[in-house]
Amino acid sequence: MLESHELNTMFYPKSVALVGASPNPQGWGGTSFLLRLLNIGFPGTIYPIHPKATEVLGLKTYPNLQSIPEPVDLVIIAISAPGVPRILEDCVVAGLKNVHIFSSGFGETGEEEGKKLEQQILEIIKRGNLRVVGPNCMGLYVPASKLAAWGVKPAGSGHVAFLSQSGGHGEILTAYAQSMGVYFSKLISFGNACGLQVADFLEYLHQDPDTHIITMYLEGIKDGNRLTRLIKEINQTKPVIILKAGLTETGSRAVASHTGSLAGEGRIWDAFFKQTGAIRVNSLEEIIDVVLAFLYLKPTRGKRALVLGGGGGNSVAFADICGRQGLDIPPFSENTRKELNEFIRLAGNSTRNPLDVWMVQRDAKLYRRVMEIAMSDPSIDLAIVDRVVGGLDVFDDDERPEGDHDKGLNEVNDFLIDFAKENPFGKPLVVSANLYGNDLYCADNAAQLRRKFVTAGVPAYASFESAARAMVRFIHYHEFLSQF
Amino acid sequence: MLESHELNTMFYPKSVALVGASPNPQGWGGTSFLLRLLNIGFPGTIYPIHPKATEVLGLKTYPNLQSIPEPVDLVIIAISAPGVPRILEDCVVAGLKNVHIFSSGFGETGEEEGKKLEQQILEIIKRGNLRVVGPNCMGLYVPASKLAAWGVKPAGSGHVAFLSQSGGHGEILTAYAQSMGVYFSKLISFGNACGLQVADFLEYLHQDPDTHIITMYLEGIKDGNRLTRLIKEINQTKPVIILKAGLTETGSRAVASHTGSLAGEGRIWDAFFKQTGAIRVNSLEEIIDVVLAFLYLKPTRGKRALVLGGGGGNSVAFADICGRQGLDIPPFSENTRKELNEFIRLAGNSTRNPLDVWMVQRDAKLYRRVMEIAMSDPSIDLAIVDRVVGGLDVFDDDERPEGDHDKGLNEVNDFLIDFAKENPFGKPLVVSANLYGNDLYCADNAAQLRRKFVTAGVPAYASFESAARAMVRFIHYHEFLSQF
Repeated sequence: MLESHELNTMFYPKSVALVGASPNPQGWGGTSFLLRLLNIGFPGTIYPIHPKATEVLGLKTYPNLQSIPEPVDLVIIAISAPGVPRILEDCVVAGLKNVHIFSSGFGETGEEEGKKLEQQILEIIKRGNLRVVGPNCMGLYVPASKLAAWGVKPAGSGHVAFLSQSGGHGEILTAYAQSMGVYFSKLISFGNACGLQVADFLEYLHQDPDTHIITMYLEGIKDGNRLTRLIKEINQTKPVIILKAGLTETGSRAVASHTGSLAGEGRIWDAFFKQTGAIRVNSLEEIIDVVLAFLYLKPTRGKRALVLGGGGGNSVAFADICGRQGLDIPPFSENTRKELNEFIRLAGNSTRNPLDVWMVQRDAKLYRRVMEIAMSDPSIDLAIVDRVVGGLDVFDDDERPEGDHDKGLNEVNDFLIDFAKENPFGKPLVVSANLYGNDLYCADNAAQLRRKFVTAGVPAYASFESAARAMVRFIHYHEFLSQF
Repeated sequence: MLESHELNTMFYPKSVALVGASPNPQGWGGTSFLLRLLNIGFPGTIYPIHPKATEVLGLKTYPNLQSIPEPVDLVIIAISAPGVPRILEDCVVAGLKNVHIFSSGFGETGEEEGKKLEQQILEIIKRGNLRVVGPNCMGLYVPASKLAAWGVKPAGSGHVAFLSQSGGHGEILTAYAQSMGVYFSKLISFGNACGLQVADFLEYLHQDPDTHIITMYLEGIKDGNRLTRLIKEINQTKPVIILKAGLTETGSRAVASHTGSLAGEGRIWDAFFKQTGAIRVNSLEEIIDVVLAFLYLKPTRGKRALVLGGGGGNSVAFADICGRQGLDIPPFSENTRKELNEFIRLAGNSTRNPLDVWMVQRDAKLYRRVMEIAMSDPSIDLAIVDRVVGGLDVFDDDERPEGDHDKGLNEVNDFLIDFAKENPFGKPLVVSANLYGNDLYCADNAAQLRRKFVTAGVPAYASFESAARAMVRFIHYHEFLSQF
């Protein structure tokens, strides 16, 4: 935790007031938040606010914020939009500074009433000097504080922060990342951003010792110059990974109806990424893909990849993907090929790069021999290996010795984890656990295989394309840094 | 089956000779093929050829092709490369025309010996007027004949043909497609293509009444002009879908070591696709994505999509994807919005396109009401709906009534299948069963959900991006046809 930062009480609240918790809840709202805080065991005091009820879920309620016996660290407002200004006025009167407005129905509706309400709350926020997250957002998610406004239970604390203009994206990303063993320091869903801005959160995260990597989902921002300066600076010590949405014509219209934001122009954002060196991604999955590289890999010396998969068609596909993504697949030295050809026959295999050697797929000893030869080639900077997924294997069961099949595959996977950790030539290794088209019979196997690698600290990807793309982003980041 | 075509006996053989079937098999080869034919119940006669053995897997063997008591319809050669020319000479002597050469170790090795062997077999093929598939390939896969040289059992006959320069791709594609309920008329893996060329197979498939859609994986071709003319013609009655590999520098090197082919230049292939109107795809998965559209959808009137998902962030992502792919997401008419706003509240929802209405996700009646209003809007040509996958749902179990959860989702899925089949406004509907990042907890659920839709005849995709891309390809094809 940061010493003496004004946002500390918000991220690590000792008490929370929930405006909108009700004994007869309908749909989302304060009662859901209350349930979630209780479920994950929020250790502080919770004050449900309700004009008439005396009790909600066993907790004593209070008729309004002024009647709470202590100044709470965080107020969560989850009532319908027209009531929000009055609650904010109560915050001002009661001297409560930290507020999360869950309620929607403001500028994002595009209707006059909503826009007027947004102007109203803007005025109160300014006058009362409030620190407001939202409105129209899911708010704060801080595993270390057991604070979560959304329905994915924090499975642990980690070093990745996520700033998101979409609450749904926050939920999806937490669920997905945690299933891959990636944990968060802080997530903030900030919606229309009428109070605290992206830059305010970033200034905090920049200094936050618990945050090593900063990821963001942005629709529109308000102070481009401030953000550019800030991200350029932060990015040099903490990689900043950004999914910027709404840069198509259709997308910018959707952004306007979602958070009432201006998505901005493509060329301006191109310049932003060029200037700041922030890592640009195109989907939520890609955020985690890139995070995995930063969490587990040392920088590479260059972008020349060793590729080892299986099947000639796959080798061609991998080579095309690398070509499109901007990774090189250099030819091996004469010496490397000579050493490989000593024990790999030419017919049906390829000892060129990409390596296509069926006999190693289930033979850890041979796999090690191949990797040690190929990785020591001076033309290689990193390796991407594609692993056959158990359930995908197309041979009939009666064509192979019983039991040996998965055993061999598993032994190679175990070897790869050891080899990646040994890092014997100072060259990173990542894995693609290719689903080959989300085949019905192996979808779970592929996910399990990825999890095996990732939880052992080896970046593993859902497709070869994801692996290659993440590596290119990772390499470009370090190239950018090396300019300074 | 085609009447009186010279390739008929090859696709529908009554007898097969297997050169290389051995009582002591090592790795792949003739014995594997034999096992596979027996496994799937090939109804014709099988003659294993072995110089010494008297019996393989209970079948009487013959020392050579000349000693077989009848002229077999198909010879499969699965011995090491140096022995292949002699077997081809035997075919010439015995008057056997149809040959599949599985063996590799020819031009694709890049070595002098292999190139010389390839020249030798080319000479024999020409002199003997042989019809040769290969070498260096998996050969023929014809479900109707119970003929399969690879290890994926045919699950049924269908109307899709696949011509592939990679055997591995043939295996992967059959396994994947069949799991999605897509069945094949004929698959041909042809490797180095020393004998029969792509164009020879295409001429057959053009006339083949069992083939309605033609798909291809190409590395390099030999007679570009013939192929261009032919595909331009075929594509007007049978959609031709092509994955062309090796158009990057790294990819073209991989193509050379795989099938010894020249991948060609990007601009030449650009011209080819422009001239022929063939549908260009970038991965195996995409082949099936596009096939699903052609199998199940009527042509659209245009490319203006109704999008219905869930979550503001997702709506923006969908809109950006459509923007990048070239689909429009038009605003609804005032009338449509008025009708929707009668029962959907603005806060937390969007009655703009993309529609974001949480309350319909588990309510089939409301979903129908929304779809009937939105699909009747004259600005809409098609719909893509994104379905929440059960296991992905991020809410805690204790926050919802037991059992109701999946029930509501399933009822909406059933409604969507009915609605798509009713096709009430003559506008196609497709589904994306979004995995949201291959989440460990829902990979199987997503695959099962796709299968539910697809086997009911509703195209369903592994991601919104796949859905949008397939629709664009489908629409462009019909735009191309409408020129004529």
